[in-house]
Amino acid sequence: MTQKKIPTAAIILIGNEILSGRTKDLNGNYLAKKLFNLGISVREIRIIPDDRIEIINSINEFRKKFAYVFSSGGIGPTHDDITAECVAEAFGVPLPINQKAKRMLASNYPGGESDLNEARLRMARIPLGSSLIENSISKAPGFKIENVFVLAGVPKIFQVMVDFVLNNLEPADPIISKTMTIYKPEGEIAENLAQIASQFPEVSIGSYPFETDGIFGTNIVVTSTNQELINKIITLISKI
Amino acid sequence: MTQKKIPTAAIILIGNEILSGRTKDLNGNYLAKKLFNLGISVREIRIIPDDRIEIINSINEFRKKFAYVFSSGGIGPTHDDITAECVAEAFGVPLPINQKAKRMLASNYPGGESDLNEARLRMARIPLGSSLIENSISKAPGFKIENVFVLAGVPKIFQVMVDFVLNNLEPADPIISKTMTIYKPEGEIAENLAQIASQFPEVSIGSYPFETDGIFGTNIVVTSTNQELINKIITLISKI
Repeated sequence: MTQKKIPTAAIILIGNEILSGRTKDLNGNYLAKKLFNLGISVREIRIIPDDRIEIINSINEFRKKFAYVFSSGGIGPTHDDITAECVAEAFGVPLPINQKAKRMLASNYPGGESDLNEARLRMARIPLGSSLIENSISKAPGFKIENVFVLAGVPKIFQVMVDFVLNNLEPADPIISKTMTIYKPEGEIAENLAQIASQFPEVSIGSYPFETDGIFGTNIVVTSTNQELINKIITLISKI
Repeated sequence: MTQKKIPTAAIILIGNEILSGRTKDLNGNYLAKKLFNLGISVREIRIIPDDRIEIINSINEFRKKFAYVFSSGGIGPTHDDITAECVAEAFGVPLPINQKAKRMLASNYPGGESDLNEARLRMARIPLGSSLIENSISKAPGFKIENVFVLAGVPKIFQVMVDFVLNNLEPADPIISKTMTIYKPEGEIAENLAQIASQFPEVSIGSYPFETDGIFGTNIVVTSTNQELINKIITLISKI
């Protein structure tokens, strides 16, 4: 059985409110799970402030390093919403008012385009060369430029954008993950487990200790795109 | 009123299980909140895999850039626990068995030191020049080397280590945060808010839209170490 290379992704969460601990992030975990189920391996999640330099640097670092980059946050109408301009700067493209985005936005207000004041029009500025990501909730779209997907931070809106985006991604080989629970503390099985892991460097074998009512155990999680290989390793682990 | 420079921090969460979405991280938010309350500004939270190069690079990037660096995860007994060796390599120091750490560990087992097999002894390897961070739950210590604090990933243990560490940090000026709720959608107040924000570039003014039962509103969060300045800005915002 051959194994295709697993496509990689990174997630950038933009927002001072997460870094201060005021808000618990929900978006990273939501997207990470979805990507895993699609066979895409998330290699980094980075939470950064609403800061021009940090956003531009992260976008530029990630878009070269990973197959897909997703950002969350900073595309609303206020002064601290600077993601669109940072992405345009990272790609070296202009940030004009996108007419389709403007029409989408206008559809959200009773007065249509006449309700689009300067602040709301900010949300129609889209880096040149992007395609729009639909937002069925508040209409203001996200956008995709090359391999970078720029999504809203509000969880409900983030989620509808994720669903829109993932329906249009090329499918990868599914990643399979099997968990085996062993009722021994981690320190007792670690040596044998290390020996097994060293024989299969291309498979991820994670070890997660737990304690329930004074009983110590370990969950072993074996992850790969190759089901046969997983079965083989699980059999070896069951004999530890 | 003078304003001291706010000390900065970054948090590195190490673990494939968070990146796959299998586990929801609790540690980042727990520590971010505690640091905020101590007057320390978290500037980045980075979730990375159990990968040597990624860990070393993040440690080296952050320890130069921020006043404090905290890591979570990867200090258990199994083959995927590689944080201690990565930190030693990042600092260019050896990783010997630490005798005090060995005694702490032994105290957790009925047979004492004779129960310390090779895997468990891995947890007594501490980079030279570190001080130990106590773990009242499972005894295996974390450690501090220069401005880097290396903590466990299991939330209960992470939390006792955080409490141990933060009791020993130098106090900074407290960061004060005041939230004002305005029952208008973000797009309607954005222009006036931008004008206020531009007058106080040293104060963080965040804007967070919400919708409850069809009513749209915006929470404005003003954050600084200067209470007078916050009051002045809140007065201005209340007139929007």
